[in-house]
Amino acid sequence: MYHHIKKLMYTVHVDSPDPRFGKMLLEQFGGANGELAAAMQYSIQGLNCEDPARKDLLMDIGTEELSHLEVVGALARLHLKPMKKSRSAGEADPLIAIAGGGGVGLLNSMGNPWTADYLKITGELDVDLRSNIAAEARAKIVYERLINFTDDKGTIDALQFLMTREITHMKAFILALDSMKKNPLEIGKIPPSPGLVNQYFNDSTGKGDYGDDDMRGPWNQGGDWAYVNAPAFQEFENAKEGTRTSNGASGQEELAGPGRSRRT
Amino acid sequence: MYHHIKKLMYTVHVDSPDPRFGKMLLEQFGGANGELAAAMQYSIQGLNCEDPARKDLLMDIGTEELSHLEVVGALARLHLKPMKKSRSAGEADPLIAIAGGGGVGLLNSMGNPWTADYLKITGELDVDLRSNIAAEARAKIVYERLINFTDDKGTIDALQFLMTREITHMKAFILALDSMKKNPLEIGKIPPSPGLVNQYFNDSTGKGDYGDDDMRGPWNQGGDWAYVNAPAFQEFENAKEGTRTSNGASGQEELAGPGRSRRT
Amino acid sequence: MYHHIKKLMYTVHVDSPDPRFGKMLLEQFGGANGELAAAMQYSIQGLNCEDPARKDLLMDIGTEELSHLEVVGALARLHLKPMKKSRSAGEADPLIAIAGGGGVGLLNSMGNPWTADYLKITGELDVDLRSNIAAEARAKIVYERLINFTDDKGTIDALQFLMTREITHMKAFILALDSMKKNPLEIGKIPPSPGLVNQYFNDSTGKGDYGDDDMRGPWNQGGDWAYVNAPAFQEFENAKEGTRTSNGASGQEELAGPGRSRRT
Amino acid sequence: MYHHIKKLMYTVHVDSPDPRFGKMLLEQFGGANGELAAAMQYSIQGLNCEDPARKDLLMDIGTEELSHLEVVGALARLHLKPMKKSRSAGEADPLIAIAGGGGVGLLNSMGNPWTADYLKITGELDVDLRSNIAAEARAKIVYERLINFTDDKGTIDALQFLMTREITHMKAFILALDSMKKNPLEIGKIPPSPGLVNQYFNDSTGKGDYGDDDMRGPWNQGGDWAYVNAPAFQEFENAKEGTRTSNGASGQEELAGPGRSRRT
Amino acid sequence: MYHHIKKLMYTVHVDSPDPRFGKMLLEQFGGANGELAAAMQYSIQGLNCEDPARKDLLMDIGTEELSHLEVVGALARLHLKPMKKSRSAGEADPLIAIAGGGGVGLLNSMGNPWTADYLKITGELDVDLRSNIAAEARAKIVYERLINFTDDKGTIDALQFLMTREITHMKAFILALDSMKKNPLEIGKIPPSPGLVNQYFNDSTGKGDYGDDDMRGPWNQGGDWAYVNAPAFQEFENAKEGTRTSNGASGQEELAGPGRSRRT
Amino acid sequence: MYHHIKKLMYTVHVDSPDPRFGKMLLEQFGGANGELAAAMQYSIQGLNCEDPARKDLLMDIGTEELSHLEVVGALARLHLKPMKKSRSAGEADPLIAIAGGGGVGLLNSMGNPWTADYLKITGELDVDLRSNIAAEARAKIVYERLINFTDDKGTIDALQFLMTREITHMKAFILALDSMKKNPLEIGKIPPSPGLVNQYFNDSTGKGDYGDDDMRGPWNQGGDWAYVNAPAFQEFENAKEGTRTSNGASGQEELAGPGRSRRT
Repeated sequence: MYHHIKKLMYTVHVDSPDPRFGKMLLEQFGGANGELAAAMQYSIQGLNCEDPARKDLLMDIGTEELSHLEVVGALARLHLKPMKKSRSAGEADPLIAIAGGGGVGLLNSMGNPWTADYLKITGELDVDLRSNIAAEARAKIVYERLINFTDDKGTIDALQFLMTREITHMKAFILALDSMKKNPLEIGKIPPSPGLVNQYFNDSTGKGDYGDDDMRGPWNQGGDWAYVNAPAFQEFENAKEGTRTSNGASGQEELAGPGRSRRT
Repeated sequence: MYHHIKKLMYTVHVDSPDPRFGKMLLEQFGGANGELAAAMQYSIQGLNCEDPARKDLLMDIGTEELSHLEVVGALARLHLKPMKKSRSAGEADPLIAIAGGGGVGLLNSMGNPWTADYLKITGELDVDLRSNIAAEARAKIVYERLINFTDDKGTIDALQFLMTREITHMKAFILALDSMKKNPLEIGKIPPSPGLVNQYFNDSTGKGDYGDDDMRGPWNQGGDWAYVNAPAFQEFENAKEGTRTSNGASGQEELAGPGRSRRT
Repeated sequence: MYHHIKKLMYTVHVDSPDPRFGKMLLEQFGGANGELAAAMQYSIQGLNCEDPARKDLLMDIGTEELSHLEVVGALARLHLKPMKKSRSAGEADPLIAIAGGGGVGLLNSMGNPWTADYLKITGELDVDLRSNIAAEARAKIVYERLINFTDDKGTIDALQFLMTREITHMKAFILALDSMKKNPLEIGKIPPSPGLVNQYFNDSTGKGDYGDDDMRGPWNQGGDWAYVNAPAFQEFENAKEGTRTSNGASGQEELAGPGRSRRT
Repeated sequence: MYHHIKKLMYTVHVDSPDPRFGKMLLEQFGGANGELAAAMQYSIQGLNCEDPARKDLLMDIGTEELSHLEVVGALARLHLKPMKKSRSAGEADPLIAIAGGGGVGLLNSMGNPWTADYLKITGELDVDLRSNIAAEARAKIVYERLINFTDDKGTIDALQFLMTREITHMKAFILALDSMKKNPLEIGKIPPSPGLVNQYFNDSTGKGDYGDDDMRGPWNQGGDWAYVNAPAFQEFENAKEGTRTSNGASGQEELAGPGRSRRT
Repeated sequence: MYHHIKKLMYTVHVDSPDPRFGKMLLEQFGGANGELAAAMQYSIQGLNCEDPARKDLLMDIGTEELSHLEVVGALARLHLKPMKKSRSAGEADPLIAIAGGGGVGLLNSMGNPWTADYLKITGELDVDLRSNIAAEARAKIVYERLINFTDDKGTIDALQFLMTREITHMKAFILALDSMKKNPLEIGKIPPSPGLVNQYFNDSTGKGDYGDDDMRGPWNQGGDWAYVNAPAFQEFENAKEGTRTSNGASGQEELAGPGRSRRT
Repeated sequence: MYHHIKKLMYTVHVDSPDPRFGKMLLEQFGGANGELAAAMQYSIQGLNCEDPARKDLLMDIGTEELSHLEVVGALARLHLKPMKKSRSAGEADPLIAIAGGGGVGLLNSMGNPWTADYLKITGELDVDLRSNIAAEARAKIVYERLINFTDDKGTIDALQFLMTREITHMKAFILALDSMKKNPLEIGKIPPSPGLVNQYFNDSTGKGDYGDDDMRGPWNQGGDWAYVNAPAFQEFENAKEGTRTSNGASGQEELAGPGRSRRT
């Protein structure tokens, strides 16, 4: 059950309303990484969650994001209001000016309606927490960019508040995931195929417009990694080898194609 | 530049075509966590990326996902084909049967057209890698669920191959992020507000339908955490206290409100 | 600012989970006339509203709808849960079963993602109240139909609660509009053209598949109504009459074409 | 069956083409409250309608809206045409300039494609009429705002014509609804729960950023209203009271929680 | 200006209402290749068209499609009506049953809302005619598939009528295009680059799952065709060769790369 | 299986980055007629295709379009990059500037997310080829318009390359269709009704705003054409004639209504 208090979580002041910046701000009101997306993603994950402790966490943060939605909306409205009357301002976003009368709508910065396609909800708790960590990271960088696009002191203060809270949430989600003590690569219950899982496919090769030779790093060398060079080229060079099947692979380093790996 | 080899990355066999399962499979063809979403997310991140090493990684995996798209499509097509002729099969997904002639389309399992709203691309490399780690975790769990919904041996083999590769990619993205050696909570350049960032807001309270008292865990106690109880209730109890501002917070554990408001 | 209490506004019980009915229920969770649509429409109207009394009304009801969203979600989840494991259940909505793990998502009954295109927000208070009256009427009839599609006692009880509240809200919105004491046809500030506004255009004529002759009623006869018969036919029969302009019309009953009406 | 006459319902003249205003005009061509939305909403309601008299009304007005679509399109085209050649004009809406060659498309003022999600069609006649009344009110205010954004005499004349017709339609729909002689709160056949229906929930409380104390008016006091103060707070203060159920409520003014109401 | 006659262009009879077939029929009501898409594509092209003769053609056919929309809607409604009451029928499309009360909506066969993204309108007359020819071909095949999914005599008669008209329209559009006497490959005014335009890029190679060796036909051999084998492989084999530019191509058969790169 | 080479198919140079032109360019990256649409349309048609020769063609061109997507993306990125820092540039497309950090996204020129609704895939080979011919014609004209909106030499070179390739593809698709040696009007297997198919319905009549009298041309006179004047008017003048049925029509020129045609 929800209750609303007639006070913003962070009081907003705007010295110089700037409709074009107000339009940018809508990105965090009705945009893909905005506050409604956060509120809905966490609250609905919470509704589905059967771990009472992390369900509480999801509801805590989901509810806070609703309060943030209200703060961003109040801030955006102060910037957008001149759109109702000023022609040059209205031209910047006629959807706000003409259809919305200068008020906020559930739109992103280019007038796209908010859609639940923005949400990532799987019902698998550790997976959902990973989606949330990424979502908070995205929201943080978007607030940072917004701060860099304005000089209005009051606006910056409010955005700094909201940006800070995203880091708070990110920290909480990371700790909630860590405390599940799962191996990061153990998602769900069915294990991956052991030979195949360590093969790195070098599917983009060559040198040229894009920079140097193939790049190596911890993500494709060392540890258990087997490096499979240009799997498609191998096929091209030896097109009669026969199709790949799920049996018979050996998985030797630098030689194995993916198809030769055996599922066991 | 892309080249296509007329061979699947994993050869598919289907013993018993099952149109209703084929429809489910479309979730990984044209769905939110499916192979086109993965291919586009990584490839476009790669196009924008200015770190040559991780750009190569993004293009490698983005390209592999295109090959997966082809595998899932070939597999789904084998299952869906009876839809063209069988009335009972066609009724399960008339969009495939009537508009698509029993072939695959870029749709999810409920017939929604694929949309770029599924993608998470910010142009901030560490943030994008976090989005990718989460995306791979989601794709893995979706493949696992698909495996649990079929008994067809050939289908399971192909799904096991694809599922395994998601873990491979997840591993690579985690290592690519780790090797950037960034503090996980340092996103972008503007630091969060130091007093505020450690305040956990307990915005969902009570006991009842949803389980027990407020739950505590590493995500809201210990370390630097300050626990702010029911910020909105505080306001309700003391509605005349000044509004919150960005300066002056004390951040004392259990006492501080998000700004400087004190509960009592 | 929002606060969440860990208790549903209406406790839900389900005796016989029915995944296909659960899917229907999603219409009121993530559908066009569902609870999120209501919550967002009223809350955002409230955010934009400058009449303090009716702003409070909009926030009161907007907040209640968030609590309803939670009730519908909890109820739908009980019905949908078998989708995670049962193949026949999962086939009914693979988006829930496969992508969502048997939990609720912000989807309608056919799996379409919720979109802000469902909302009607103009920032003109009396107009918004009219949109809300209509929205409540739609929500009421949808709940009624849902009740007619189930025999589950606990489900019916919860739907009866929710359905009743829609009438409550409809009543409140009607009274809020009435108390503005505006002439129902005075929308905004620019008056309509007096001669033209009372002309009823009979644009659909004939007798046949669709029923009888042209129908008359208070909506096109009596009072100030002038009845303009088949404006397009008039043109066809007399194609050389000058084009319609904004001056020169007389508006005589049964004779006047719309173009002859004078704007004064 | 439809027939088209090669004459506009209102002849349009534009003295000074203004591409940015043309873009605004698209809001009434392919926007949420525009002429196609009106035409489709009424015509499809008419197709489903079994009351021959009001079916005729719906077809009359639905058809007129098609003629309006043509007028708005012709007017917008005159304004947009310079987009094909002028760079500064084209930049204002590249979708029109580049993809559309300077012609109109079924887009709103921000380039969003028209979608049937804009429509409100329930098949319940009185409910549909309410949706139509609200739709006409919205269309009227949008035309008024457009008039306020231009000085072009010919454009204003055409918009005045179209705006006037929305009031005509609104009047007709109101009279068609009134003549059904239904109690406005009797929607469908299942009655609301009598105790509960008159409870107003004060879900937004406090004093502060948002204005004064809780506001009272005919929509929550007087008549049959029972005023339930902060239902969630009640729960919070007495969390052990037990969950709400559908039986046992008394409904006393100022005391009753919603759950205590009895369904009879 | 439009006029509506209360008679269907083709009278519909249904002997055995079949809600699941009714759902399929919606594909031609509110689907991608359905009647509204056709009506809007041609009518809006017509609105933008400056060739008076073909403008008339576009309006003729655009208007006929509106009449077809009405026929399909009337037919679908007869099939869908049982959804309002029957649970098993309603489960097949709860969006129709619950939200729509068993009436038609502007949805496709899987419940997706109609969107203007279905339309192809460029304002270049010959290009638009090509889009229309393709659109009619698609509509024809969809009607044929619908006919194959039903045994109901009255339904087949109506679909045969509608299917036939698509061929009529296709014929008219082909003749309208032919009579423009344009070289089919002369689109717009800027000519293609002469050397490059005749190079066929063999970008998909190999032998295997997909069938035989590279296939040749009139589309890549004979005439002016130069066959460029695996442009990307060439690059791979000789990665240091200069980048491709727009000058210097020789275009020799079997030798030329797309720019000036030579296969070696 | 796909392979990626780290070299663009056409090297791009930009002398003067122009963010507003970059935004226009996105039309061919993530727009309705852009390169991803082409790549997906052909590749998925290819996946479904059972004619090995034309399947190869579809995969060849589908793969080339992926390389074009990369070229357009690289070009657009060069133009858009200033959006990350410049306020005036960022205001032109905040979705790119704020959410995307100045990189490309899968959006069209007005920020709409790419959607599979752009695709035309029926699984009927000749129909799909027609859709592809039209798609290439559209893409060509869009590139031409883009060329007309820039003076940047490097940009024009790259667009000229891409534009040329669309004509190459159009030529290949036309030849692939021609070589099927089908009568252009024989789509699918069910023949149209012979009397009805040659009736041209003159559904838009009159003289006035829209130009002259009804226009005649090869698309409605000569050959087998029967010209049916204003079918709806005929009905209007003789409303008691009885409904149209599928039997009994004679199809005489200038007299026959469509309903009188006989299906045989």
